[in-house]
Amino acid sequence: MNLILITSHIGFGVAKVLDSGHPSFKKGDLVWGNTKWEEYSLIANSQFLFKIQHTNVPLSYYTGILGMPGLTAYVGFYEICSPKRGENVFISAASGAVGQLVGQFAKLLGCYVVGSAGSKEKVDLLKNKFKFDEAFNYKEESDLDATLKRYFPEGIDIYFENVGGKMLDAVLLNMRGHGRIVGCGMISQYNLDKHEGVHNLINLIYKRVRIEGFIVTDYFHLYPKFLEFILPHIAEGKIVYVEDIAEGLESGPSALIGLFSGLNVGKQVVLVARE
Amino acid sequence: MNLILITSHIGFGVAKVLDSGHPSFKKGDLVWGNTKWEEYSLIANSQFLFKIQHTNVPLSYYTGILGMPGLTAYVGFYEICSPKRGENVFISAASGAVGQLVGQFAKLLGCYVVGSAGSKEKVDLLKNKFKFDEAFNYKEESDLDATLKRYFPEGIDIYFENVGGKMLDAVLLNMRGHGRIVGCGMISQYNLDKHEGVHNLINLIYKRVRIEGFIVTDYFHLYPKFLEFILPHIAEGKIVYVEDIAEGLESGPSALIGLFSGLNVGKQVVLVARE
Repeated sequence: MNLILITSHIGFGVAKVLDSGHPSFKKGDLVWGNTKWEEYSLIANSQFLFKIQHTNVPLSYYTGILGMPGLTAYVGFYEICSPKRGENVFISAASGAVGQLVGQFAKLLGCYVVGSAGSKEKVDLLKNKFKFDEAFNYKEESDLDATLKRYFPEGIDIYFENVGGKMLDAVLLNMRGHGRIVGCGMISQYNLDKHEGVHNLINLIYKRVRIEGFIVTDYFHLYPKFLEFILPHIAEGKIVYVEDIAEGLESGPSALIGLFSGLNVGKQVVLVARE
Repeated sequence: MNLILITSHIGFGVAKVLDSGHPSFKKGDLVWGNTKWEEYSLIANSQFLFKIQHTNVPLSYYTGILGMPGLTAYVGFYEICSPKRGENVFISAASGAVGQLVGQFAKLLGCYVVGSAGSKEKVDLLKNKFKFDEAFNYKEESDLDATLKRYFPEGIDIYFENVGGKMLDAVLLNMRGHGRIVGCGMISQYNLDKHEGVHNLINLIYKRVRIEGFIVTDYFHLYPKFLEFILPHIAEGKIVYVEDIAEGLESGPSALIGLFSGLNVGKQVVLVARE
């Protein structure tokens, strides 16, 4: 097994089968799934390995929009958030692999969509490429509560949580009644010795808000339904996707570290080998 | 309108109608609902006023088990928590108006039930009167995480949240996969200038946990269904209820303040007048 192995930061990648003793996979098949950070992999457990059927898209998409991040965005938004047309949607880390898709899904549904990101370049991407209604650079905002009140004078119905900490605290002050928060990631917190305290949880009661965390591996049974939904949208150009490709397996560690300071613009991919 | 007016801390009470211009209420009717802290009340808005139909119970029960706290326990447990037989249930402020009922509902369903409270007297009540499987005095525990691990070696499926702050933080470390937390109250936080930080929210994602806040006034349409459920259980002695009755309207303020330091044992009621 080898060749193209474009590994995402948790070891999901795209690969070509060199040899196989598994009845579902044969030599030459393209696959995506849990392939580890290496040029050649021996995969004993095929639970998280999927055969690639549609090749009229960049194969790297299977590390992103057509892989785990795509399914994550789909499940998190459609299954967990119970979104309704016209609702107010806020997405943090919005230019990332998942956030950029959630925003586009919400726009397809006729929602008002605002995203936060950490640079002018990313904010421009959100507004111009992904067609968010508004976007802001959280690093330039000294009072996130005031920022959210500016963009959501009537409050937030759905918050797609990718960062945690201070942003979540500000969001809790700005949720509307019966709002929903989906916990997808808390990237601001992973590398802290002690996680930041969140002080405004009492608003969950006052505003009747639901927070729900999920992990995409519980939803792989929805992958065929997701593909059926997303492929035509890609083909028609109604959903776009931005990747940040680092060349060479040796660039992997710095690309991984860069995620935590937001150096990547779009989905971070490591290109190990071209076909 | 006057006579028995047993007012709860947010102004819910029981009263007799002295005069009425409303077609649904007539002189002599007993009612419960939003009656304010006074001996005689003029009620212009009958939205939260209910006629008492069943009088073979102490009328004070309509400030508690048959009133808002009872419906709160019922909705919070059955509607929000999606409980299943045999699940592990933890209740904080468990001897209070709501907690004591949630625990008994969970026992009826065959759950394993543990409650926390703030005195030996309350802990004894939980174990001996309400038949919780276990109970502990949180004031005697220096490490709530360790305490919960002792009582829930396999984790918590359902947490009925009445206190917030440090207890919630410890619970988050001990939730099982796909657990549910219902946010009913956070009494430890109401009187703080700045609410305590909750540091362990990332477990919502790791454990796929849902937190949902609710307010009982959204569920008054379920009151008839709730009465149908609870009245036979009271008649058969399968559900018991403990009240802490303060005599006289003048005892109201100190009874209210006592709630925040846990002086009450059971539902705090203020007896304004006997019939």
